[in-house]
Amino acid sequence: TIQDWEKKREIIVCLLVSVLGAIGTYFLIPSVKLLNLKAGLFGIDINKVEGKKIPESMGIVPGTVYLMCVIFFQLYVDESLLAEYNAAMTSICFMIFLGFADDVLNLRWRYKLVLPSVATLPLLVAYRGSTTVLVPRFLHPYFGPQLALGIFYQIYMGLLSVFCSNAINIYAGLNGLEAGQSLVIGCSILYFNLSYLENGPFAQAHLFSVFLTLPFVFATLGLLYFNWYPSRVFVGDTYTYFAGMVFAVVGILGHYSETLLLFFIPQIINFIYSIPQLIGIIPCPRHRLPKYNKDTKKLEPTPNLTLINLTLRIIGPTSERNLCIILLIFQVFCCALGLGIRNYIAELIR
Amino acid sequence: TIQDWEKKREIIVCLLVSVLGAIGTYFLIPSVKLLNLKAGLFGIDINKVEGKKIPESMGIVPGTVYLMCVIFFQLYVDESLLAEYNAAMTSICFMIFLGFADDVLNLRWRYKLVLPSVATLPLLVAYRGSTTVLVPRFLHPYFGPQLALGIFYQIYMGLLSVFCSNAINIYAGLNGLEAGQSLVIGCSILYFNLSYLENGPFAQAHLFSVFLTLPFVFATLGLLYFNWYPSRVFVGDTYTYFAGMVFAVVGILGHYSETLLLFFIPQIINFIYSIPQLIGIIPCPRHRLPKYNKDTKKLEPTPNLTLINLTLRIIGPTSERNLCIILLIFQVFCCALGLGIRNYIAELIR
Ligand SMILES: [Mg+2]
Ligand SMILES: [Mg+2]
Repeated sequence: TIQDWEKKREIIVCLLVSVLGAIGTYFLIPSVKLLNLKAGLFGIDINKVEGKKIPESMGIVPGTVYLMCVIFFQLYVDESLLAEYNAAMTSICFMIFLGFADDVLNLRWRYKLVLPSVATLPLLVAYRGSTTVLVPRFLHPYFGPQLALGIFYQIYMGLLSVFCSNAINIYAGLNGLEAGQSLVIGCSILYFNLSYLENGPFAQAHLFSVFLTLPFVFATLGLLYFNWYPSRVFVGDTYTYFAGMVFAVVGILGHYSETLLLFFIPQIINFIYSIPQLIGIIPCPRHRLPKYNKDTKKLEPTPNLTLINLTLRIIGPTSERNLCIILLIFQVFCCALGLGIRNYIAELIR
Repeated sequence: TIQDWEKKREIIVCLLVSVLGAIGTYFLIPSVKLLNLKAGLFGIDINKVEGKKIPESMGIVPGTVYLMCVIFFQLYVDESLLAEYNAAMTSICFMIFLGFADDVLNLRWRYKLVLPSVATLPLLVAYRGSTTVLVPRFLHPYFGPQLALGIFYQIYMGLLSVFCSNAINIYAGLNGLEAGQSLVIGCSILYFNLSYLENGPFAQAHLFSVFLTLPFVFATLGLLYFNWYPSRVFVGDTYTYFAGMVFAVVGILGHYSETLLLFFIPQIINFIYSIPQLIGIIPCPRHRLPKYNKDTKKLEPTPNLTLINLTLRIIGPTSERNLCIILLIFQVFCCALGLGIRNYIAELIR
């Protein structure tokens, strides 16, 4: 049908814009890198023999490039969607700005919780969609087929963006892990969107989600090239907040935030496992990384409660590169599992 | 009529939000100040005997507060305007982010021209308004009553934002001048908007402009309290870009960009006077400030081609505080003149 052809054409244009975004990121990082070093935005890679200065906060490059891609692609977005599309851009742009401000100014912990909620506000305010959730069939006698959440739905959306941003931010510390996990989650979202484009009540919403996710995946590819082991750049809070916000935004506007959380299983495990340290029952140092053994050149677990240390305790000392690959394979496995669970639950609701 | 009452109610709500914004700016600056100092974002005030470290880039506070105000006020904006309103927010937010990145990373000169054009893109793309300009009556035989500019109108809008941002940025260097001139221009815009709210084809557009200008004026007030002589904070490119972008955005979406330029007479004089240095005919040092005489505690002109030096050459050595007040009075005078010219031209067109 014509409408399908129209959809395909839009996705192809979006793909082209996104590929340009990846190329732009690839070419901009080397020169912005030098500016960040000069501005004192760098970190020491403690998992290496030579403690080199690595430029930090390089998420500003894919972030800025991403914004330019979605701004240009706006020309192809249906006019009826422009308000939500622009609200999404405002939220993501606000989050990149706040993430960069955090990297530069080193804001306190509590701000890390406040900032994503503030940045989601444009979205919450512009959100004109349904605030009801579908109820599983066996609960119909108690709640009916739909449950109206009203203002609680807005609160849920705010919490979702706080969770997504911070969950990625604390599942970090290995070369390539932040950008890698975001790439896997982004691809899972795209796969999920594309399989619901043809039918279903939310086909339009899934298309919308593709438009916002595709440029993200490609900008991340450009970043990952430099961030992969051995890292020549670090991504910074700028990137982790940016990534978390993109996911929260597409989950909310695509009406599949429950499914989104199923792609976050490793982050949820890491978060729950971290809780004793996060709330201060167990002392929490500034960095909770594993220990680098300069003799074996392998990482060894520290007592800090992170999924990275837990994995090291299970599989024994591993090189940083291999550990990152193992965790990313686990991420792929969890996302596939999430898709399976989602389809099973969809049957329950129908 | 009910519609008038509705308008009044909206303006009063906007005023309340803006007052909260001024209070928020006032209370946030002292603590963010310390973060900026710690992050190395400070400058030395060279027009003082004691060369104290003054926190720089403090525009992030009114910028962030402004964004929060317009995000909250979005709840009161008519749904039909949401797309343009959100595009305006995206452009302004993008500009604040790029301004702050400039302050931190010290981008090169050519970027200063590119960044505002990039940040205007959301607006240019979302702009669905008329791209025609009214033609003065005596030219009707040649062009007709309206002239369709099409894509040239978009280019004009991009150039307008580049001009507004940079014109304020280079008319700077005295304690309180950047924030002061922006306050005067902002108030002139408000006066102009309010006098066209009742009648005329663009009443709705003027209301829209009030919603975006009022929070700016109040956030600037909060900043000016600390930036006034003797400055306890500097505003940074973050603020000058932010201010320029707000003006360009309201001028474009309010359909009065020609009138806007009439409020920029001192900036235009300063810009034209600076051209020989800007294009490199005459050498251009990094700072083009007047010279501080430690004995008389007055400023004396340097050969640099700025309106500040020109004024000093005309009125003789003056204290920094008095010079700033004189230039701001000149700004008020020019804005009043601009309003007069605009009304005269409006007669010509009618
Ligand atoms: Mg981090
Ligand atoms: Mg400046």
